[in-house]
Amino acid sequence: MREKTTYQRVSLEEVFSPRGVAVVGASGSGRMGFPEGVLMGLVEAGCPAVYPVNPKYREIMGLPCYPTLESIPGPVDYVVVSIPATGVMTLLEDCAGKGVKAVQFFTAGFSESGIAQRADLEREMLAKARASGFRIIGPNCVGLFVPKSGLVNISGVSFEPGPVAFISQSGGHANNIVQFSDFRGIRFSKVVSYGNGLDVDEIEMLEYFKDDPETKIIAAYIEGIKDGRRFKEALEAAAAVKPVIIYKGGRTEAGQRAAFGHTASMTSSIAVFEALCRQANVIQVNDIDELIDVLVLLSFADPLPQGTGMAMIGAGGGPSVLAGDVMEKHSLCLPALSNAIQNELKKVLPVDGSIFTNPLDTPNMSTPKAISSAMTIMGKIPEIHTLFYHMGFHPISRWGINRFMADNYGEQLAQALVEAKASSGKPILLALRPPGDLGGMEEFLDVQKAAVDAKIPVFYDLDRLALAVSRVAAWRKNKMAWMKPGT
Amino acid sequence: MREKTTYQRVSLEEVFSPRGVAVVGASGSGRMGFPEGVLMGLVEAGCPAVYPVNPKYREIMGLPCYPTLESIPGPVDYVVVSIPATGVMTLLEDCAGKGVKAVQFFTAGFSESGIAQRADLEREMLAKARASGFRIIGPNCVGLFVPKSGLVNISGVSFEPGPVAFISQSGGHANNIVQFSDFRGIRFSKVVSYGNGLDVDEIEMLEYFKDDPETKIIAAYIEGIKDGRRFKEALEAAAAVKPVIIYKGGRTEAGQRAAFGHTASMTSSIAVFEALCRQANVIQVNDIDELIDVLVLLSFADPLPQGTGMAMIGAGGGPSVLAGDVMEKHSLCLPALSNAIQNELKKVLPVDGSIFTNPLDTPNMSTPKAISSAMTIMGKIPEIHTLFYHMGFHPISRWGINRFMADNYGEQLAQALVEAKASSGKPILLALRPPGDLGGMEEFLDVQKAAVDAKIPVFYDLDRLALAVSRVAAWRKNKMAWMKPGT
Repeated sequence: MREKTTYQRVSLEEVFSPRGVAVVGASGSGRMGFPEGVLMGLVEAGCPAVYPVNPKYREIMGLPCYPTLESIPGPVDYVVVSIPATGVMTLLEDCAGKGVKAVQFFTAGFSESGIAQRADLEREMLAKARASGFRIIGPNCVGLFVPKSGLVNISGVSFEPGPVAFISQSGGHANNIVQFSDFRGIRFSKVVSYGNGLDVDEIEMLEYFKDDPETKIIAAYIEGIKDGRRFKEALEAAAAVKPVIIYKGGRTEAGQRAAFGHTASMTSSIAVFEALCRQANVIQVNDIDELIDVLVLLSFADPLPQGTGMAMIGAGGGPSVLAGDVMEKHSLCLPALSNAIQNELKKVLPVDGSIFTNPLDTPNMSTPKAISSAMTIMGKIPEIHTLFYHMGFHPISRWGINRFMADNYGEQLAQALVEAKASSGKPILLALRPPGDLGGMEEFLDVQKAAVDAKIPVFYDLDRLALAVSRVAAWRKNKMAWMKPGT
Repeated sequence: MREKTTYQRVSLEEVFSPRGVAVVGASGSGRMGFPEGVLMGLVEAGCPAVYPVNPKYREIMGLPCYPTLESIPGPVDYVVVSIPATGVMTLLEDCAGKGVKAVQFFTAGFSESGIAQRADLEREMLAKARASGFRIIGPNCVGLFVPKSGLVNISGVSFEPGPVAFISQSGGHANNIVQFSDFRGIRFSKVVSYGNGLDVDEIEMLEYFKDDPETKIIAAYIEGIKDGRRFKEALEAAAAVKPVIIYKGGRTEAGQRAAFGHTASMTSSIAVFEALCRQANVIQVNDIDELIDVLVLLSFADPLPQGTGMAMIGAGGGPSVLAGDVMEKHSLCLPALSNAIQNELKKVLPVDGSIFTNPLDTPNMSTPKAISSAMTIMGKIPEIHTLFYHMGFHPISRWGINRFMADNYGEQLAQALVEAKASSGKPILLALRPPGDLGGMEEFLDVQKAAVDAKIPVFYDLDRLALAVSRVAAWRKNKMAWMKPGT
């Protein structure tokens, strides 16, 4: 059980907006490890004050380097620690002396090592933090990505703040979600990797993000929970006001064994966890890609899918057959087109080579304008709630869609889809199959970028698109039923 | 029911090795459509004689163009047709006059259009072919890719012949499998897109590929079958001597509706079809990507996985937890490591930052040599049948594995994996997560190419790797049980 706190803790709000950040354990040797990457990110993101700390160097990456925390001239509210576990208690003394507000340990080798003395050391660290009035993030984590404050742990990505909060017990997933969401347009309020969760844990963060005005969507990667009752309360409260998506790692016996070695998590019964999520109307996903897909849909579909009826427009019989199979697999449907609708479609699409069913198979050379008109026509069918266009890119760029593309095809298509959204009042999505090789990659990225810039949700295959729509539609339906009891 | 043939038909062997190929309907206008792509492919692949036919042009793509089939000086055994359906009977007269052996119709708009007269026209075409002694491929298909004969329908890919035959009712899938298999090292004996299957159909091809000495593995995309009893016989006979993999399109009501519009297929009950495949020990897959994954494993795993025990080596707690979950989902297992094995591993891998369980989590900077040694040690465990290394590439190339890579890292790694295969006697695989964006793509492709060149099977994520292993292990187990009744 978590101890009750009786003193005034430093709030997460304070943790997330430091005046100065020190990085202890960075090296000036030119080696590019975790602490050096953090330094680079902090500088790029415009952190107010960045201080490398290492007695061996006078300068690291062009920044003056300090021998100790104490020797830093300005205030230091946040400390990133990447030194061996054996040295951490001495460092925590220094942190207390400097009056810091939070200490983040990249350092691993604590309770998750399975060694009793290391679990004892963790308890000692927590006691020190409580006594000195600062917070601990981790240990065994990559810490924070709070672009608004310039407090980041990664470089080379967009530092534009956004509506998504992500809580992650895995540092790898915390970094990956930022990188792999970047070109899909997802932007974050705060990403927190919390590792072993010694002090700041998933419960406190759910409580915080529920009320955080910057955060509109809450996502989490969780391996284990320490206090089921309080977790349930926090999850229900958060999910009542914002969409919550959870990827639970360690669903199986083998996964659980790995989770213990990873973050010392004793994962609870997956059946209990799933039931808890269902009751709270939490969207459950099975990996980071699925999580990103749901975030794309929640961030950009406007409106959200109002039901399970889908319409697909694309080229090729194979993809049409696959679409039928995939939609049904994910409990979505492809409502049939009436003769009247088919006749309308024949006025805007080439009759030769098109098959006027749903999925609507029309040659690759159909113009974006024609696609937009077809979507507007199909969008009139009340049973169709979501429409999407499907394009496959090919590694041999003189094949497939690639060869029909004008120079500004991406922008033309994005513009056409935005028009279809306006005229149909329904969500318009884009399924883009990547070429898998360098050939065709440039065309693929051009179209993706134009669509993402225009806030059209992009998915990489039919299965992933259908899965995301199915999850969000089910979430929305439950939410509506909940908001209007008796309907 | 298919009519019984009473005359000596042109054999598929003859169809697959023409002395000359005519392409009717190519244009010299510079537009790059299907027939022009075929012409380009035929020239690139070294087809013995290539003749564009079109009365409007004297030359197409640098080749002399002929006004009619009759005016072609040399023998023409194979004709590719891309003219409107209304002109086909006249053309078939010309084919009979020229003494061709096979006619392939790209032309669509026959029975799959749902128009009665067009179904009648198909029957007339078949009667003409029977009377004149030539074969029909299609209509409504992209025809043949037979690299050994230079008889191809696509350009820009490898024309090296190989052991895989692919039969496809969808032209898109037939072209896609060649393109998307290319950089994964899969090579083909023959790929046949047969569309509506008016004459040459899946049954005749199963019979042919069963005995074709060039073909070691048979794969098929099938929407519908016309003669269930004969199909069953042909499938069982083929699967008794070679691995057969089938992707059945139109599994659901929505998929079946699309399949009728695509190739006029009345798909049979999926339950019946699946039972038939199970009885014949056919490997069933759900899309082209899964099909390619199984082909990769069957083509390159050496030996094939002898059971369901897996060992993973890779970096990061998140992927380790995911691996545990994914393996169990696909009925595979990750056998635990004894203390003795763990102690051996500690001699070859960095102790700090590694977690000596299965999955084995070891820092990215572990050298290929160390990974190979670790695989050799883990390979001693009898319950482990397949070992793989997992690497994630990142779009921000100074993150993840990318930044640790020496210039020839791909070759070093491939060499190390080949050594591990030799020393363990077990299949060694590579899971490579692509970066998803241009950043990191070059490093990813370098490693993929080196591994593919060294015949190490490469998969793009843990789920797809596990699914392929699970399918091939189940197939092999059934085959063994079959070969040794009573065991």
